Amino acid sequence: ENSHGKVHESDEYSKYKRYFTPLPTLPPIPADNPLTPEKVKLGKMLYYDPRLSRSKIISCNTCHNIALGGDDNVKTSIGHGWKTGGRNAPTTLNSGFLKVQFWDGRAPTLEEQTKGPIQAHVEMNATPELVVRRLKAIPEYVELFKKAFPNDPDPVNFENVAKAIAAFERTLNTPNSPFQRYLLGEENALTKEQKEGMKLFVEKGCIACHNGPVLSDGRFHKFKSNNDTGRFRVTKNPKDKYLFRTPQLLNVALTAPYFHDGSAKTLEEAIRHMAEQELGQKLSMEEVRKIKAFLESLTGEIPLEARTVPILPPERQ
Amino acid sequence: ENSHGKVHESDEYSKYKRYFTPLPTLPPIPADNPLTPEKVKLGKMLYYDPRLSRSKIISCNTCHNIALGGDDNVKTSIGHGWKTGGRNAPTTLNSGFLKVQFWDGRAPTLEEQTKGPIQAHVEMNATPELVVRRLKAIPEYVELFKKAFPNDPDPVNFENVAKAIAAFERTLNTPNSPFQRYLLGEENALTKEQKEGMKLFVEKGCIACHNGPVLSDGRFHKFKSNNDTGRFRVTKNPKDKYLFRTPQLLNVALTAPYFHDGSAKTLEEAIRHMAEQELGQKLSMEEVRKIKAFLESLTGEIPLEARTVPILPPERQ
Ligand code: HEC
Ligand code: HEC
Ligand code: HEC
Ligand code: HEC
Ligand SMILES: [Ca+2]
Ligand SMILES: [Ca+2]
Repeated sequence: ENSHGKVHESDEYSKYKRYFTPLPTLPPIPADNPLTPEKVKLGKMLYYDPRLSRSKIISCNTCHNIALGGDDNVKTSIGHGWKTGGRNAPTTLNSGFLKVQFWDGRAPTLEEQTKGPIQAHVEMNATPELVVRRLKAIPEYVELFKKAFPNDPDPVNFENVAKAIAAFERTLNTPNSPFQRYLLGEENALTKEQKEGMKLFVEKGCIACHNGPVLSDGRFHKFKSNNDTGRFRVTKNPKDKYLFRTPQLLNVALTAPYFHDGSAKTLEEAIRHMAEQELGQKLSMEEVRKIKAFLESLTGEIPLEARTVPILPPERQ
Repeated sequence: ENSHGKVHESDEYSKYKRYFTPLPTLPPIPADNPLTPEKVKLGKMLYYDPRLSRSKIISCNTCHNIALGGDDNVKTSIGHGWKTGGRNAPTTLNSGFLKVQFWDGRAPTLEEQTKGPIQAHVEMNATPELVVRRLKAIPEYVELFKKAFPNDPDPVNFENVAKAIAAFERTLNTPNSPFQRYLLGEENALTKEQKEGMKLFVEKGCIACHNGPVLSDGRFHKFKSNNDTGRFRVTKNPKDKYLFRTPQLLNVALTAPYFHDGSAKTLEEAIRHMAEQELGQKLSMEEVRKIKAFLESLTGEIPLEARTVPILPPERQ
């Protein structure tokens, strides 16, 4: 509604808004893991705590570095023993909005997801027992688990580690991006070039897969780049060979390199490749430039609370 | 001054205060590297930025993790390629107050110190050229260097990287510890046990080496535990064999394990060993407990500004 009390579409681009969904304040919260300040506080500590890894030097924040946009900016992550799992680390920012977790969708929830890297040999290489033993030896943690899970008689357990981290991740959302502000009515939050990019994003068909609040349909699509068979590894169904879950695109300007194997160094490269492989089209340099400008408008603000490093309690001596 | 307007020593412990020096707000600032907000801001970004390492995954904060009290809590640090240099990482907190840097004192200033780990093969394994090339490719960094070094025609250089990080480190101080508050007149900031520990710390002779605002004389003393020859490695003077610089003791409750090789797992162990090796005395269990309680009163507050993770600019694509 403008100052004359009349709803109008102020320019030729406004009609594209309806293809998009503004980012809600919070993602869906599962009934069995309600979001409480106590749990989020504990989850943040665990997220930043390298003692969740066998070596004691790798935390979630090592590969999903808040300072870098929730990822590690390398081709494929390096973990325990300087080993790599061969896949690029997606951002944890806004990950609560994803319908399934991991490039191959092998975890249905953030709770399930979290248990993966803690135990993966090429990531944190710990065990549930080791993690629980370490946490139980730190009296401040025991207290914090009691507060976060007040009805649980033995709250320091691996399920609750996962629940607390997942709760924290659900607060790792990035509002106030230029595009978000544009969607909410701030006409000048986007440049003309970015609006052109938005239009192309819809008209070329990117929106077919990159839709919803974080621009991912949560579904699987063919993307063959090396011998990683993607979804097939999970289902063993031949139809799923080389299928990968559409990644979100919020903050994508911060998360180079791109694709599940980090094979695209730049956003231009990723856009061009997408158009060719997923849409069978060749984009002009100008089109790529405009779509890139649009994608850059998806960078939001990381909440100060998540950016404030917790003071972790020392081990009992 | 108490409420009756009369200066008095309120208890038998007050007389020990004069052996100690309260922590000033800031350490000495070198004339050629004045502290400015612009420089501190840049220095914080560089401190948290893993792109200063060849692998792009190791930052100063990896081994001097603010969340953990400015260290990494492991015996000897693990760096590039999962290699170790065989020494324990001291905390960067309050490091601006040290008269010389490193266990063997091989760097006279924080500026010189910083150049070490960036290039060390077992730490960040980069080169000055690599670091400067990477930073120059990030327009936001170029701007920030210009602001931090306004009189420098070509400000993105390795000297300035070191200057900015050193400037940030000089703000990494931890005021408001119980002991600090006690020294400044808050009589009840220490428990009786902690006051007993303070008394023992003076009377047993720890204060001979652990003195000044961070409880380090900045001098070298014999400490043989393995074949690391310490100061001798720097001077090649046989008299310097197995000499190590006295470490500071602020926040020591957060920085286990102890000694240059991380050989003491607990504070008790370190205290007992110090008394035997440096003072030729055996302490009773009670004495150890009291000194430990005193050392625990040295944990201060990490400034919120230092704990706020910077948002690092992405590489130009
Ligand atoms: C050594 C690097 C490393 C560590 C440590 C690590 N991750 Fe990851 N993370 C990855 C990689 C690589 C992937 C993608 C793996 C895949 O899809 O097969 C990933 C995927 C994820 C995802 C899925 C996001 C998406 O878009 O599908 C989430 C959420 C996540 N990690 C959170 C965490 C949490 C929480 C921790 C700590 C408990 C953690 N990670 C520890 C590297 C790491
Ligand atoms: C048919 C579905 C589909 C269409 C259409 C599609 N994408 Fe994608 N997109 C994906 C999938 C799946 C991936 C992940 C591929 C992989 O790495 O395995 C992806 C990855 C990306 C990435 C990399 C994200 C990251 O973090 O690595 C970008 C950028 C991207 N798409 C942009 C676009 C643009 C721009 C268009 C239109 C020109 C487009 N996509 C069209 C499904 C699609
Ligand atoms: C891979 C681990 C690692 C990394 C990365 C690292 N350090 Fe260190 N740091 C150490 C170790 C180990 C020592 C002790 C080495 C010695 O004394 O020989 C040390 C010593 C120091 C000291 C001396 C403190 C004292 O009490 O003498 C300072 C200050 C310091 N580092 C700051 C930094 C800064 C700034 C960076 C980043 C530019 C950095 N470190 C990167 C492990 C690391
Ligand atoms: C003659 C000098 C001297 C005396 C006396 C002395 N210290 Fe030390 N202290 C040192 C030196 C040098 C080190 C470092 C040894 C090493 O690791 O190489 C050290 C290390 C320590 C550490 C470990 C700090 C860390 O971060 O690793 C503690 C704790 C400590 N001293 C406490 C004490 C106590 C308590 C006493 C008295 C009972 C004492 N010291 C007496 C010189 C001394
Ligand atoms: Ca990426
Ligand atoms: Ca230590």
